[in-house]
Amino acid sequence: MAEPLPDADDTVLARVAWGRIAEPCDLQAGALVAHLGHRGALGWLRSTRAEPPPGLWPAPVWERARARWAPRVEGLDPAREVAGIRRLGGRVIVPGDEEWPAALDDLDVLAPHCLWVRGDPGILRRPAVAIVGARASTGYGEHVAGELSASLADSGLTVVSGGAFGIDAVAHRAALAVGGATVAVMAGGLDRFYPAGNADLLARVARDGAVVAELGPGSSPSRSRFLTRNRLIAALAGACVVVEAGWRSGTLSTAMHAARLLRPVAAVPGPVTSAASAGCHRLIRDGVAVLVSDAGQVRELMASAGEDLADEPSDDAVRRPSDTPPGLDSSHAQVWEALPARGAATLESVARVGGLAAREVRIALGALELAGHVRREGDRYRRTAT
Amino acid sequence: MAEPLPDADDTVLARVAWGRIAEPCDLQAGALVAHLGHRGALGWLRSTRAEPPPGLWPAPVWERARARWAPRVEGLDPAREVAGIRRLGGRVIVPGDEEWPAALDDLDVLAPHCLWVRGDPGILRRPAVAIVGARASTGYGEHVAGELSASLADSGLTVVSGGAFGIDAVAHRAALAVGGATVAVMAGGLDRFYPAGNADLLARVARDGAVVAELGPGSSPSRSRFLTRNRLIAALAGACVVVEAGWRSGTLSTAMHAARLLRPVAAVPGPVTSAASAGCHRLIRDGVAVLVSDAGQVRELMASAGEDLADEPSDDAVRRPSDTPPGLDSSHAQVWEALPARGAATLESVARVGGLAAREVRIALGALELAGHVRREGDRYRRTAT
Repeated sequence: MAEPLPDADDTVLARVAWGRIAEPCDLQAGALVAHLGHRGALGWLRSTRAEPPPGLWPAPVWERARARWAPRVEGLDPAREVAGIRRLGGRVIVPGDEEWPAALDDLDVLAPHCLWVRGDPGILRRPAVAIVGARASTGYGEHVAGELSASLADSGLTVVSGGAFGIDAVAHRAALAVGGATVAVMAGGLDRFYPAGNADLLARVARDGAVVAELGPGSSPSRSRFLTRNRLIAALAGACVVVEAGWRSGTLSTAMHAARLLRPVAAVPGPVTSAASAGCHRLIRDGVAVLVSDAGQVRELMASAGEDLADEPSDDAVRRPSDTPPGLDSSHAQVWEALPARGAATLESVARVGGLAAREVRIALGALELAGHVRREGDRYRRTAT
Repeated sequence: MAEPLPDADDTVLARVAWGRIAEPCDLQAGALVAHLGHRGALGWLRSTRAEPPPGLWPAPVWERARARWAPRVEGLDPAREVAGIRRLGGRVIVPGDEEWPAALDDLDVLAPHCLWVRGDPGILRRPAVAIVGARASTGYGEHVAGELSASLADSGLTVVSGGAFGIDAVAHRAALAVGGATVAVMAGGLDRFYPAGNADLLARVARDGAVVAELGPGSSPSRSRFLTRNRLIAALAGACVVVEAGWRSGTLSTAMHAARLLRPVAAVPGPVTSAASAGCHRLIRDGVAVLVSDAGQVRELMASAGEDLADEPSDDAVRRPSDTPPGLDSSHAQVWEALPARGAATLESVARVGGLAAREVRIALGALELAGHVRREGDRYRRTAT
């Protein structure tokens, strides 16, 4: 059994191997790699005599895990998979890589072993919002999803979604349309975009944003993989907005994952006569989601949860987004950061996003304008190019 | 000043007089009659030398109150007003009358001095739900209001509303259409139905239900009287359902009154693109209202608040609705009371309305069916005529 396993010295290949060996959310795999590290866990797999990790589960559970992993070890060739994604212009990232989204660590033992990326992995660490919803969307839902996504993308948030028909597709498309960033999380490998009907859209997402997956090239999507994929959408974003979902929609699983990860969840209401809104109303009634009517309310929700800068590292030298003009005092920097990356915003909006008093914001905007960092347009303010 | 005041021995006339002298929600009038009684308060008004009630407000406040009441005392003739409502086939009711809705006492010093009624004042003590909303309603809102009102009226609840165009009118009309009870609360006197465009509808409400007001015949409605009228709608009903309301709609005042009176408030969501639903979404976001999608959820809300029997006297001999078949043990009586007065209900609905376990309900329904009190129709149960 030792033959097909990669060199145990290479952490990246060991992670890629585990991504192939274990299905997403395999608890025993998660526990094993947490206990022994990915390379150590491969060593454990090599030695049929190795003791299972102490505690947690009795021996038969580990025997069953070995039994379900064994077929996947045959023909395993992580180096070939890595070469494969490179041929597609993509790459694989793992914790420790500069681009690794720290937000995924919130998934703990359910974190993906690695992440396959086509496009710019750099955007994965930027503040993001998930916009998800029904494939069987209505014209109403598509309209609202488009407005929300365009506005949120325009204010500098990356729009994360699942690349599906309906609401997901509209969310990606609207973000691209305003020149914003968007990430599609796939349930299968990145050698093939699914659904095929969205292949052109997903190719554009890969070009201008990023298409990501936890499963390597050649992996096919399945129902269970769609559900486990939903936790990645929830984890990658600072908040989750549901636009249309049926009473038992799979979209609700994304919302539940977000809630479990303590991300704020928002839902857009619709006519009570529309089955496509029943899931949204359910989330609001159950107290899982906050009702939102527009992008401003989503930003407000994220600001109140302190999520708008969720993925900014807080424990290393980089304390501010790199595009903040140098030399600003901290109150001015706060106001500058509350301004949208693109587009203009009113004083009230800046105060809301930044969680600052209107008076403070007025003074800071005046100073920023004098210093040439901000341009006033009527009652709105815009960052000048830096 | 003594001349035009009625015989101070007649409490009804004294209350009618105060209803004419003071505007609704006049706090000094409320405090004065709470302190001295309606007849005593008239006596106080007669004597220019009487001391104001101690505490609460300094003397200038009482001087201003006297000054604003004085013009109303001229020409006061409560007996003529009472004769006037009799000519219209109506009457005036006061606390102590059998038909007086005890729910109004929750308004405390803001309770009306008396209530003018055209129609059957008996229905004012029965379990009721308020369905209120925008005059500028949409086809969507009217559809939902009609469905809600018909279903709630059909399950035996009186539908209370304000008789206005739009949602109010639909609520009254739908309740009448299913042979249910409905009450319209007017902001002006009952000699003229307002708005004139709803005169035919309000005449039907007066014939089959009741049209009520706190102001005597001849009083005209005004903006402030519409707002104070809203507290009566809120108080008369065990719960308040808002179907469409603009962002600053007057309907929101009814919802706020209901919330202050600890009545459950529900709001029906709608498209976020519809200005007519903005007020509903606001109530839900602010936590004032629970989102409801159908009549079952309204009944559930009322049941959970114990409001479906809100107006049943709890501290006198009559402990059960008079139409409960005699001789039932308490668990069977509970199930019987959870059945709609008209129409049939599923076991699940009975359990929900009654707040009972499904198993209990099944056993009790079987016993009630055997005893001939309930008839089964497929999977639904209906009270037999008693």
